[in-house]
Amino acid sequence: MDNSTTTNHTIFSQIIEGTIACHKIYEDNHVLSFLDVNPISHGHALVIPKEAAATMDKLSQESAAALGACLPKICRAILAATQTTAYNLLQNNGTAAHQAVFHVHIHIIPRYNDHGLALGWNPTSLSSQQGTTLSEAIANHL
Amino acid sequence: MDNSTTTNHTIFSQIIEGTIACHKIYEDNHVLSFLDVNPISHGHALVIPKEAAATMDKLSQESAAALGACLPKICRAILAATQTTAYNLLQNNGTAAHQAVFHVHIHIIPRYNDHGLALGWNPTSLSSQQGTTLSEAIANHL
Repeated sequence: MDNSTTTNHTIFSQIIEGTIACHKIYEDNHVLSFLDVNPISHGHALVIPKEAAATMDKLSQESAAALGACLPKICRAILAATQTTAYNLLQNNGTAAHQAVFHVHIHIIPRYNDHGLALGWNPTSLSSQQGTTLSEAIANHL
Repeated sequence: MDNSTTTNHTIFSQIIEGTIACHKIYEDNHVLSFLDVNPISHGHALVIPKEAAATMDKLSQESAAALGACLPKICRAILAATQTTAYNLLQNNGTAAHQAVFHVHIHIIPRYNDHGLALGWNPTSLSSQQGTTLSEAIANHL
Protein backbone atom coordinates (compact mmCIF):
# COMPACT_ATOMS: atom_id res chain seq x y z
CA MET A 1 0.00 0.00 0.00
CA ASP A 2 1.23 3.50 -0.77
CA ASN A 3 0.04 6.87 0.46
CA SER A 4 -3.06 6.72 -1.71
CA THR A 5 -4.46 4.33 0.89
CA THR A 6 -4.75 7.05 3.47
CA THR A 7 -5.35 10.05 1.22
CA ASN A 8 -7.93 8.58 -1.17
CA HIS A 9 -11.00 8.85 1.04
CA THR A 10 -14.18 8.36 -0.99
CA ILE A 11 -17.72 7.37 -0.11
CA PHE A 12 -16.53 3.75 -0.26
CA SER A 13 -14.03 4.40 2.54
CA GLN A 14 -16.93 5.73 4.59
CA ILE A 15 -18.92 2.58 3.84
CA ILE A 16 -15.95 0.43 4.90
CA GLU A 17 -15.60 2.45 8.11
CA GLY A 18 -19.33 2.10 8.75
CA THR A 19 -20.09 5.83 8.80
CA ILE A 20 -22.30 5.34 5.74
CA ALA A 21 -24.64 2.35 5.71
CA CYS A 22 -24.78 -0.27 2.97
CA HIS A 23 -26.71 -3.41 2.14
CA LYS A 24 -23.86 -5.78 2.86
CA ILE A 25 -23.53 -9.13 1.14
CA TYR A 26 -20.04 -10.26 2.14
CA GLU A 27 -17.00 -9.13 4.09
CA ASP A 28 -13.56 -10.51 4.85
CA ASN A 29 -10.25 -8.97 5.94
CA HIS A 30 -9.53 -7.47 2.52
CA VAL A 31 -12.86 -7.17 0.73
CA LEU A 32 -16.38 -5.81 1.16
CA SER A 33 -19.37 -6.50 -1.08
CA PHE A 34 -22.74 -4.72 -1.02
CA LEU A 35 -25.65 -3.83 -3.28
CA ASP A 36 -25.33 -0.88 -5.66
CA VAL A 37 -27.90 1.73 -4.57
CA ASN A 38 -28.41 2.67 -8.21
CA PRO A 39 -28.73 -0.78 -9.76
CA ILE A 40 -29.00 -1.23 -13.49
CA SER A 41 -30.57 -4.65 -12.88
CA HIS A 42 -31.95 -6.63 -9.94
CA GLY A 43 -29.05 -7.97 -7.86
CA HIS A 44 -26.48 -5.44 -9.13
CA ALA A 45 -23.71 -5.56 -6.52
CA LEU A 46 -20.27 -4.09 -5.95
CA VAL A 47 -17.15 -5.82 -4.69
CA ILE A 48 -14.45 -3.51 -3.36
CA PRO A 49 -11.04 -3.94 -1.73
CA LYS A 50 -10.66 -2.33 1.69
CA GLU A 51 -7.43 -0.82 0.37
CA ALA A 52 -8.38 2.60 -1.00
CA ALA A 53 -6.62 2.39 -4.37
CA ALA A 54 -8.24 4.56 -7.03
CA THR A 55 -7.69 2.22 -9.98
CA MET A 56 -6.72 -1.41 -10.61
CA ASP A 57 -3.17 -0.51 -11.70
CA LYS A 58 -2.61 1.11 -8.26
CA LEU A 59 -3.96 -1.80 -6.20
CA SER A 60 -1.56 -4.04 -4.26
CA GLN A 61 -1.17 -7.62 -5.45
CA GLU A 62 -2.41 -8.85 -2.06
CA SER A 63 -5.69 -6.93 -2.31
CA ALA A 64 -6.10 -7.88 -5.97
CA ALA A 65 -5.73 -11.57 -5.12
CA ALA A 66 -8.30 -11.27 -2.33
CA LEU A 67 -10.66 -9.43 -4.66
CA GLY A 68 -10.36 -12.20 -7.25
CA ALA A 69 -10.65 -15.00 -4.70
CA CYS A 70 -14.10 -13.95 -3.44
CA LEU A 71 -15.68 -13.43 -6.87
CA PRO A 72 -16.80 -17.01 -7.64
CA LYS A 73 -18.68 -17.44 -4.36
CA ILE A 74 -20.30 -14.00 -4.49
CA CYS A 75 -21.39 -14.61 -8.09
CA ARG A 76 -22.85 -17.98 -7.10
CA ALA A 77 -24.80 -16.38 -4.24
CA ILE A 78 -26.19 -13.64 -6.49
CA LEU A 79 -27.23 -16.19 -9.13
CA ALA A 80 -28.90 -18.35 -6.48
CA ALA A 81 -30.79 -15.44 -4.95
CA THR A 82 -31.88 -13.84 -8.23
CA GLN A 83 -32.41 -17.02 -10.27
CA THR A 84 -30.40 -15.59 -13.15
CA THR A 85 -27.68 -17.43 -15.06
CA ALA A 86 -26.04 -14.65 -17.11
CA TYR A 87 -24.15 -11.68 -15.72
CA ASN A 88 -21.36 -9.22 -16.43
CA LEU A 89 -18.42 -8.16 -14.29
CA LEU A 90 -17.26 -4.62 -15.02
CA GLN A 91 -14.53 -2.52 -13.45
CA ASN A 92 -13.98 1.02 -14.77
CA ASN A 93 -10.73 2.96 -14.40
CA GLY A 94 -10.58 6.68 -15.11
CA THR A 95 -13.24 9.27 -15.84
CA ALA A 96 -12.98 8.60 -19.59
CA ALA A 97 -13.86 4.95 -18.87
CA HIS A 98 -16.95 5.93 -16.82
CA GLN A 99 -15.41 5.62 -13.35
CA ALA A 100 -17.38 7.79 -10.90
CA VAL A 101 -16.03 6.78 -7.47
CA PHE A 102 -12.23 6.69 -7.32
CA HIS A 103 -11.90 3.57 -5.21
CA VAL A 104 -11.58 0.26 -7.11
CA HIS A 105 -14.96 -1.45 -7.45
CA ILE A 106 -16.13 -4.41 -9.49
CA HIS A 107 -19.74 -4.31 -10.64
CA ILE A 108 -21.57 -7.64 -10.76
CA ILE A 109 -24.56 -7.05 -13.03
CA PRO A 110 -27.11 -9.84 -13.54
CA ARG A 111 -28.65 -10.10 -16.99
CA TYR A 112 -32.39 -10.63 -17.55
CA ASN A 113 -33.28 -10.98 -21.23
CA ASP A 114 -32.90 -7.42 -22.52
CA HIS A 115 -32.32 -5.98 -19.06
CA GLY A 116 -28.80 -5.46 -17.72
CA LEU A 117 -25.53 -4.01 -18.97
CA ALA A 118 -25.68 -2.71 -22.55
CA LEU A 119 -22.39 -3.11 -24.40
CA GLY A 120 -21.26 -1.46 -27.61
CA TRP A 121 -18.78 -3.76 -29.31
CA ASN A 122 -17.02 -2.65 -32.48
CA PRO A 123 -14.14 -5.04 -33.03
CA THR A 124 -11.29 -4.49 -35.45
CA SER A 125 -8.71 -7.02 -36.61
CA LEU A 126 -5.19 -7.34 -35.24
CA SER A 127 -2.56 -8.09 -37.88
CA SER A 128 0.21 -10.51 -37.04
CA GLN A 129 2.81 -7.74 -37.23
CA GLN A 130 0.78 -5.36 -35.04
CA GLY A 131 0.24 -8.15 -32.54
CA THR A 132 3.90 -9.07 -32.34
CA THR A 133 5.06 -5.47 -31.90
CA LEU A 134 2.41 -4.60 -29.31
CA SER A 135 2.63 -7.79 -27.24
CA GLU A 136 6.40 -7.37 -27.01
CA ALA A 137 6.01 -3.73 -25.99
CA ILE A 138 3.60 -4.68 -23.21
CA ALA A 139 5.60 -7.71 -22.05
CA ASN A 140 8.69 -5.49 -21.80
CA HIS A 141 6.92 -3.60 -19.02
CA LEU A 142 6.19 -6.78 -17.04
CA MET B 1 -11.04 -28.22 -10.25
CA ASP B 2 -14.00 -30.36 -11.30
CA ASN B 3 -14.70 -32.28 -14.47
CA SER B 4 -15.42 -29.12 -16.41
CA THR B 5 -11.65 -28.63 -16.53
CA THR B 6 -11.19 -31.57 -18.82
CA THR B 7 -14.45 -31.46 -20.74
CA ASN B 8 -14.65 -27.72 -21.48
CA HIS B 9 -12.14 -27.55 -24.33
CA THR B 10 -12.43 -24.23 -26.16
CA ILE B 11 -10.09 -22.25 -28.40
CA PHE B 12 -8.56 -20.86 -25.19
CA SER B 13 -7.56 -24.35 -24.05
CA GLN B 14 -5.81 -24.74 -27.40
CA ILE B 15 -4.01 -21.44 -26.87
CA ILE B 16 -2.93 -22.57 -23.38
CA GLU B 17 -1.71 -25.88 -24.83
CA GLY B 18 0.15 -24.02 -27.58
CA THR B 19 -1.64 -25.68 -30.48
CA ILE B 20 -3.04 -22.26 -31.46
CA ALA B 21 -0.66 -19.28 -31.40
CA CYS B 22 -1.26 -16.07 -29.48
CA HIS B 23 0.46 -12.75 -28.91
CA LYS B 24 1.43 -13.51 -25.32
CA ILE B 25 1.88 -10.76 -22.74
CA TYR B 26 2.17 -12.71 -19.50
CA GLU B 27 2.10 -16.25 -18.12
CA ASP B 28 2.39 -17.88 -14.71
CA ASN B 29 1.33 -21.26 -13.28
CA HIS B 30 -2.36 -20.35 -13.19
CA VAL B 31 -2.87 -17.53 -15.68
CA LEU B 32 -2.19 -16.59 -19.32
CA SER B 33 -2.59 -13.14 -20.88
CA PHE B 34 -2.49 -12.28 -24.58
CA LEU B 35 -3.81 -9.73 -27.07
CA ASP B 36 -7.37 -10.05 -28.33
CA VAL B 37 -7.19 -10.72 -32.07
CA ASN B 38 -10.35 -8.68 -32.56
CA PRO B 39 -9.52 -5.64 -30.43
CA ILE B 40 -12.06 -2.91 -29.83
CA SER B 41 -9.19 -0.56 -28.99
CA HIS B 42 -5.39 -0.52 -29.23
CA GLY B 43 -3.96 -2.70 -26.45
CA HIS B 44 -7.15 -4.74 -25.88
CA ALA B 45 -5.94 -7.83 -24.03
CA LEU B 46 -7.40 -10.93 -22.39
CA VAL B 47 -6.44 -12.50 -19.08
CA ILE B 48 -7.55 -16.11 -18.63
CA PRO B 49 -7.12 -18.77 -15.96
CA LYS B 50 -5.52 -22.01 -17.15
CA GLU B 51 -8.38 -23.81 -15.43
CA ALA B 52 -11.03 -24.29 -18.11
CA ALA B 53 -14.07 -23.06 -16.16
CA ALA B 54 -16.82 -21.68 -18.39
CA THR B 55 -17.96 -18.88 -16.10
CA MET B 56 -16.72 -17.04 -12.99
CA ASP B 57 -19.16 -18.82 -10.68
CA LYS B 58 -17.61 -22.16 -11.72
CA LEU B 59 -13.97 -21.10 -11.24
CA SER B 60 -11.98 -22.42 -8.27
CA GLN B 61 -11.04 -19.94 -5.56
CA GLU B 62 -7.35 -20.69 -6.22
CA SER B 63 -7.59 -19.75 -9.90
CA ALA B 64 -9.74 -16.72 -9.13
CA ALA B 65 -7.16 -15.44 -6.66
CA ALA B 66 -4.37 -15.92 -9.21
CA LEU B 67 -6.45 -14.16 -11.85
CA GLY B 68 -6.99 -11.19 -9.55
CA ALA B 69 -3.38 -11.07 -8.37
CA CYS B 70 -1.92 -10.53 -11.84
CA LEU B 71 -4.34 -7.78 -12.91
CA PRO B 72 -2.57 -4.72 -11.42
CA LYS B 73 0.77 -5.47 -13.07
CA ILE B 74 -0.75 -6.39 -16.44
CA CYS B 75 -2.84 -3.20 -16.38
CA ARG B 76 0.27 -1.14 -15.55
CA ALA B 77 2.19 -2.72 -18.44
CA ILE B 78 -0.63 -2.04 -20.91
CA LEU B 79 -0.92 1.57 -19.75
CA ALA B 80 2.85 2.03 -20.05
CA ALA B 81 2.99 0.53 -23.54
CA THR B 82 -0.08 2.32 -24.91
CA GLN B 83 0.28 5.63 -23.06
CA THR B 84 -3.36 5.52 -22.01
CA THR B 85 -4.66 6.21 -18.50
CA ALA B 86 -8.28 5.05 -18.69
CA TYR B 87 -9.47 1.50 -19.28
CA ASN B 88 -12.27 -0.96 -18.56
CA LEU B 89 -12.12 -4.52 -17.28
CA LEU B 90 -15.02 -6.64 -18.48
CA GLN B 91 -15.85 -10.28 -17.90
CA ASN B 92 -18.99 -11.71 -19.50
CA ASN B 93 -20.81 -14.81 -18.28
CA GLY B 94 -23.47 -16.50 -20.39
CA THR B 95 -24.66 -15.99 -23.95
CA ALA B 96 -27.24 -13.42 -22.82
CA ALA B 97 -24.38 -11.38 -21.31
CA HIS B 98 -22.37 -11.47 -24.56
CA GLN B 99 -20.03 -14.33 -23.68
CA ALA B 100 -18.73 -15.94 -26.88
CA VAL B 101 -15.96 -18.29 -25.69
CA PHE B 102 -16.97 -20.44 -22.75
CA HIS B 103 -13.73 -20.24 -20.83
CA VAL B 104 -13.44 -17.42 -18.25
CA HIS B 105 -11.69 -14.38 -19.74
CA ILE B 106 -11.24 -10.85 -18.51
CA HIS B 107 -11.06 -8.17 -21.18
CA ILE B 108 -8.71 -5.25 -20.50
CA ILE B 109 -9.85 -2.49 -22.86
CA PRO B 110 -7.89 0.79 -23.01
CA ARG B 111 -9.91 3.92 -23.55
CA TYR B 112 -8.88 6.65 -26.04
CA ASN B 113 -11.24 9.63 -25.99
CA ASP B 114 -14.33 8.27 -27.73
CA HIS B 115 -12.65 5.00 -28.66
CA GLY B 116 -13.00 1.93 -26.46
CA LEU B 117 -15.80 0.09 -24.67
CA ALA B 118 -19.22 1.70 -25.11
CA LEU B 119 -21.45 1.24 -22.07
CA GLY B 120 -25.20 1.70 -21.79
CA TRP B 121 -26.01 2.62 -18.21
CA ASN B 122 -29.62 3.01 -17.12
CA PRO B 123 -29.61 3.08 -13.33
CA THR B 124 -32.67 2.68 -11.15
CA SER B 125 -32.96 3.36 -7.42
CA LEU B 126 -32.83 0.71 -4.69
CA SER B 127 -35.26 1.30 -1.84
CA SER B 128 -34.13 0.56 1.69
CA GLN B 129 -36.63 -2.28 1.97
CA GLN B 130 -35.65 -3.82 -1.38
CA GLY B 131 -32.00 -3.55 -0.39
CA THR B 132 -32.48 -5.21 2.97
CA THR B 133 -34.51 -8.10 1.55
CA LEU B 134 -32.18 -8.72 -1.38
CA SER B 135 -28.88 -8.39 0.48
CA GLU B 136 -30.12 -10.86 3.09
CA ALA B 137 -31.26 -13.28 0.38
CA ILE B 138 -27.82 -13.13 -1.28
CA ALA B 139 -25.88 -13.31 1.99
CA ASN B 140 -27.87 -16.41 2.95
CA HIS B 141 -26.25 -18.19 0.01
CA LEU B 142 -22.71 -17.27 1.17
